[in-house]
Amino acid sequence: MHETNSTDHAADLDASPGAAIVFGASGGIGMALSEALDAQGSFTRVFRFSRSNSPGLDLTDETTIATAARQVRDSGLTPRLMIDATGVLQGDGCIAEKSWNQIDMAGMLRAFAINAVGPALLIKHFLPLMPMHGRSVFVTLSARVGSIGDNRLGGWYSYRASKAALNQIVRTAAVELRRKRPEAICVALHPGTVDTALSSPFQKSGLQVRAPAVATQELLSVIGRLQPSDSGGLFDQHGEAIPW
Amino acid sequence: MHETNSTDHAADLDASPGAAIVFGASGGIGMALSEALDAQGSFTRVFRFSRSNSPGLDLTDETTIATAARQVRDSGLTPRLMIDATGVLQGDGCIAEKSWNQIDMAGMLRAFAINAVGPALLIKHFLPLMPMHGRSVFVTLSARVGSIGDNRLGGWYSYRASKAALNQIVRTAAVELRRKRPEAICVALHPGTVDTALSSPFQKSGLQVRAPAVATQELLSVIGRLQPSDSGGLFDQHGEAIPW
Repeated sequence: MHETNSTDHAADLDASPGAAIVFGASGGIGMALSEALDAQGSFTRVFRFSRSNSPGLDLTDETTIATAARQVRDSGLTPRLMIDATGVLQGDGCIAEKSWNQIDMAGMLRAFAINAVGPALLIKHFLPLMPMHGRSVFVTLSARVGSIGDNRLGGWYSYRASKAALNQIVRTAAVELRRKRPEAICVALHPGTVDTALSSPFQKSGLQVRAPAVATQELLSVIGRLQPSDSGGLFDQHGEAIPW
Repeated sequence: MHETNSTDHAADLDASPGAAIVFGASGGIGMALSEALDAQGSFTRVFRFSRSNSPGLDLTDETTIATAARQVRDSGLTPRLMIDATGVLQGDGCIAEKSWNQIDMAGMLRAFAINAVGPALLIKHFLPLMPMHGRSVFVTLSARVGSIGDNRLGGWYSYRASKAALNQIVRTAAVELRRKRPEAICVALHPGTVDTALSSPFQKSGLQVRAPAVATQELLSVIGRLQPSDSGGLFDQHGEAIPW
């Protein structure tokens, strides 16, 4: 990823402020992102979707995703930024396995449903809403522990596997997106370890956690520097590529 | 992977012929592998598990996996080679999507269940049967199209994502296996394109397919050269590492 002057971007001529969309807007990172995007005021509207907002978004119920997409389409606003901040590590039926003997079929399938299939359904319903011209970015929050090449500690079978699957879905979608919307971008981002319900059971001494508001500023900074050539990639909170 | 003289391997002193196990033994590759292992005569017994053999093995029913593991344990034979030749690309509820608009929640979950969760359950029940000393190898058949870094064509969301997940599960299991059985090996292998029911709908002019018997000899040759330092890796039919 390289710093560029956004005025170089010819497509900006086509750019309307348009809409930002946050999926998982009631979670730790999603809420901070929604608030930051509202405060920033660069978008005509910030859509917040989550299980607790109305209309409810449930990644395991495709009809709620279709309803959300229809709401955005009916607004007439062009989606310029979409951030999927959903995901589960443990709880909600999922297990952060310490060993293979804790692998549980239902729990692992639940992790795939929420961390991989859900984002794939967001891609199915929301990437077609991206404009034919001008900048538009779809981001999904993945995790460094989803990296296969970087996996030295083991454990967390379901979470690691579902995030690796997510990285592959993002890469696959980026190939298709490049053909259909050459200026659009679809990436996976690692937010770093953020002080949220997901990380709190694992906050031991020595683990660096950051407040959601701090993580959010880093993420938005990385997102702002993304180029179409970055599409399909996995980047950390500093914009550095993470190996698959 | 490097060629080595197997007599260098001190642990061979502990090696009994033991058992070979083929999962998915009624499929194109699995059947050819079972026959080759029988013909080779290096193992006291070759266990063949599949949906159509008895007792039936259904990767989406953990009790059948536990039953199969118990049968091996009760035999008193040491598993020296286990090959998981299961997997689905399309059919059986799964879709080889050409575009994101074909992504189907149930179909994608089914691909994860068979291609990722099923092998994870095999790992859970069969890796603990590996001997504390001496050579023992667990192989699962993955696919080059599961490679995220190598994904240039897109499409096949479910298959690609579920094989990427499988590669991560293998890598995670290898970390755990190294602590518990330092001489054992757990890898993912790409068999190349083999003339089977899985590939037949995609055999167009130009696609190089090989007979299962030929693919089998290549796979067994690669497996024979695997070292503990290869554990956790993804290799092709020539023993070359494939990027994640």
